[in-house]
Amino acid sequence: MNIPELVQHMAREAKGAARHLGTLSREVKDRIILRVAELIKERQAQIQAANRLDVEAAQAQGHAAAFIDRLTLSDKVCDSMIKGLKEVAVLPDPVGTVTGMWVRPNGLKVGKQRIPLGVIGFIYESRPNVTVDAAALCLKSGNTVILKGGKEALNSNLALAQVMRDALAEAGVPQAAVQVIPSVAREATLELLKQDDLVDLIIPRGGEGLIRFVAEHSRIPVLKHYKGVCHIFVDEAADLDMAEEVCFNAKVQRPGVCNAMETMLVHEAAAPDFLPRMIARYQKAQVELRGCPRTREIDPLVRPAQEEDWGAEFLDLILAVKVVPDLNAALEHIARYSSNHTEAIITRDYARAQRFLQEVDSSVVLVNASTRFNDGGELGLGAEIGINTSKLHAFGPMGLEELTTTKFIVYGNGQIRT
Amino acid sequence: MNIPELVQHMAREAKGAARHLGTLSREVKDRIILRVAELIKERQAQIQAANRLDVEAAQAQGHAAAFIDRLTLSDKVCDSMIKGLKEVAVLPDPVGTVTGMWVRPNGLKVGKQRIPLGVIGFIYESRPNVTVDAAALCLKSGNTVILKGGKEALNSNLALAQVMRDALAEAGVPQAAVQVIPSVAREATLELLKQDDLVDLIIPRGGEGLIRFVAEHSRIPVLKHYKGVCHIFVDEAADLDMAEEVCFNAKVQRPGVCNAMETMLVHEAAAPDFLPRMIARYQKAQVELRGCPRTREIDPLVRPAQEEDWGAEFLDLILAVKVVPDLNAALEHIARYSSNHTEAIITRDYARAQRFLQEVDSSVVLVNASTRFNDGGELGLGAEIGINTSKLHAFGPMGLEELTTTKFIVYGNGQIRT
Repeated sequence: MNIPELVQHMAREAKGAARHLGTLSREVKDRIILRVAELIKERQAQIQAANRLDVEAAQAQGHAAAFIDRLTLSDKVCDSMIKGLKEVAVLPDPVGTVTGMWVRPNGLKVGKQRIPLGVIGFIYESRPNVTVDAAALCLKSGNTVILKGGKEALNSNLALAQVMRDALAEAGVPQAAVQVIPSVAREATLELLKQDDLVDLIIPRGGEGLIRFVAEHSRIPVLKHYKGVCHIFVDEAADLDMAEEVCFNAKVQRPGVCNAMETMLVHEAAAPDFLPRMIARYQKAQVELRGCPRTREIDPLVRPAQEEDWGAEFLDLILAVKVVPDLNAALEHIARYSSNHTEAIITRDYARAQRFLQEVDSSVVLVNASTRFNDGGELGLGAEIGINTSKLHAFGPMGLEELTTTKFIVYGNGQIRT
Repeated sequence: MNIPELVQHMAREAKGAARHLGTLSREVKDRIILRVAELIKERQAQIQAANRLDVEAAQAQGHAAAFIDRLTLSDKVCDSMIKGLKEVAVLPDPVGTVTGMWVRPNGLKVGKQRIPLGVIGFIYESRPNVTVDAAALCLKSGNTVILKGGKEALNSNLALAQVMRDALAEAGVPQAAVQVIPSVAREATLELLKQDDLVDLIIPRGGEGLIRFVAEHSRIPVLKHYKGVCHIFVDEAADLDMAEEVCFNAKVQRPGVCNAMETMLVHEAAAPDFLPRMIARYQKAQVELRGCPRTREIDPLVRPAQEEDWGAEFLDLILAVKVVPDLNAALEHIARYSSNHTEAIITRDYARAQRFLQEVDSSVVLVNASTRFNDGGELGLGAEIGINTSKLHAFGPMGLEELTTTKFIVYGNGQIRT
C-alpha cells in the first residue's frame, strides 16, 4: 500500500469503527482510558526508549532546546499523561444526554440528543504527550480519531499507539478507534485532509504555519485558532490595585501562551495614576514595553510602538501599551486588531462592564479577571482539546461536549403531514 | 470596479455592518422585517414587472415549466413572502440569550451567551422568494447577509433588494446588512467563496450540483446537505394500519422534497401481511415500486430493484422496497445507504424503538411518524434556513438559533491565574 492508499484505508476503518464507538457505555470507555494509564506506567521504560530514538535524532538535527523539551517524554511528562487520563475518566460522558425535549401541537415529542461527531483527524506537532491527551478526549466523547503527529515524534507516537491498541483490544473495542498514521510524509497529511466522505472534523494544534497549512488544504471542516492577540482595557473607573494585579498576571505568568495579554489599553483619565506604577512593576519583571505617544509622554523611556505592534502576538515578555480617550476608542481598537480570542475590561462601572461584554466579539470576554482564564479547565469544561476562534460549532475552548453534536429524536404515535 | 473587487468590497461592507447588527434590539429588527412586508405589498406591481423580465427571458431560453414556476413572483407567492416575513417577526430573538451560567471555585461566574455568527453568504437558485426569506432570517438573528441568487432571477432579486435597502435606511441601520450581488457571473460566486477573512458561513440552497460546486470551491465553512435518502423500517411489531398511513404519507404527500421516503424496509415477519395491502395502496397512487427478490416473491409484478436503486434519491413517485430478516439488517442497510438525513421505524416494540433511535446516525430519527417531519417549522424551530447533514455546528434543520453561536462571558472580581 502506498501512502494515500494507507490513509484512505485508515479513514475507512475509522468510519467503520465510529458506529460501534457511538454506542459504547461510559463504563467501557472509562475502563479503556484507565487501562491506558496503567499500561503507560507498566511500559514506561519501553516508551521512553522509543522516545529516546526521537530525541537523539532531533538533537543530531540541531533542534532548539525548547523543541527537544516538548519532544521528551520525561518521567514527569509520563506522570502528567497518566494524571490527565485519570482526569478524563472522571469527567461526565456527554453522549446520550438529551439537551431538551418539547411537544408539538400534533403530539410529536421532539428532543435533541448528544451524539459523537464521528471521525476526527487530529494534526499536531512533535509533542507525543498530546497523542494520549487527544486520544482520550476523542474516545470519551465516542469519536474515533486518526492522529498525525510531528515527524520528529514518530517512534514515540507509535509506542503510545501500541499501548492504546492493546487497551482497546482487551476491552473488545475495534482498534481502529485510535489510529496513529505510521508515516512522516506530508503526503499523508494531505491525503487525510481529502477524506471528506469519511472524516467529520479536523483539529490542528500547533503554530500558525501548521494551522494555515491545514486550513488551506482541507476539504473537511477545521476548528482552529491562528493566534491569540488578547487585550485588557483599564477603564477610568478601574480599581487600580486590581488592574495592576490582573495586567501583571495576564502578561507575565506565562507569556508564551495564546491567552496571555499582548496589548494593554488604558483610559486617559486612569493613565497618569496607573501607568507609572504598572510600568515600574513590568520593568522589575523585565517586560519590554512598546508604547503609543501618550504612553511615552508619561514615561519617555518606553520604546515607541510601531504600527505592527498593534495586533502582534509576541508570545514573549513584550507588551504594546496604548492610552485611549474612552471606551468607544478601546472597542474600536479591539474590533480592528483583536484575533477574537480573549479580551477583558477592568472597571467598577456597571454600564461600561455590560457594554464591553456585549460588544466585544471574542470567544471569551471577561470583566475584572485575567485573560489567562480562557482555558477549558479554568472555565469549567473539564479538559480541553483546543480553542476555536472561528464561530462555527463551538466558539472558544472545546471540551468533551464540544466534541459532540446533537441529532433530533422524535417519539410519535402515527403522525403524518397533511 | 471589476467583479472580484466588487465582491471584496461588499464583503468588507458586510463585515463592517456586522458589529452594528449584533447590537440591534429585537424591536428594531422586527420593525424592519415588518416594513419589508409592507413595502412588498406597496410595490408589488413594480416587483412583478421586474420579475416579468426574468420570466420572459427564461421562457425565451426554453426553461422547463417547473423552473418558470419557481422563478415567478405570482400574487400568491408575494402573499406568501409577506406571510413569511410576519412569521419571522413574531419568532423569539435568540441573540443575547444566556444558555447557562455557573460559578467556578475561585468565584468566577462563567456563562455562555448567544451571539450572531457575523456575515453569512447565501447562494441559491432562481427562486426570488428565497431572497426575502433568507434575508429576514439572517437579519432577525443579527447577521449580515450577502445573497447570490440564480442568474435568471437577477432583476427580481435586485427589485427585492431595493425594498430591503429602503426598509433598513428608514430604521437607520446600515444598508450593508442585506446585499444582493448585482452580477450573474460565476466569478462572483467564486470570489465570495474566497472571503474567509470576512465571511463566517456559507449556506448553499439548491440542487446537488450547486451544493457540490460551492463545497468544492469554498474556503469558508459550508453548511449543506447533498440529498435526502430517507428510509422507513416497518418492524415485525408494527401496527400495520399505522405503518400503511405513515409509509403512504412519507412517499406520496410531496415526493419531490428531501424528506420524502426513498426506500422502505420491511421485516420479513410483517411482509406477507403488510406488503400486499401497501403495494395496492401505492399502485392506486401510481407509485412505481422497485423491489428486492423477496418483495417480488410476494408480488411478482413489482419491478426488480437494481443495485443503484438502494441509496437513490428519486424525488418522484418511485420507491425501493426491501424485505429484511430483522432490525440488525435494517440498521446495516441504513448505515450503508442513508444520507444521514431522516429515518423512521414503525413498531410497537419498546426495545427496538429505543435501539433504532440510538443507533441510527441521521439528523432526525423518528419512531412511528413520517419522515416528512424533518422540517424546522414542523419540529418547532420556527422558520428554517436549510438542513445540514454535516455534523458540525447544527446537525439537521437550522432555524434562527442555529444562525447564532455562543461566546463565553465571565464576571470576575480580580481573579488571576496562579
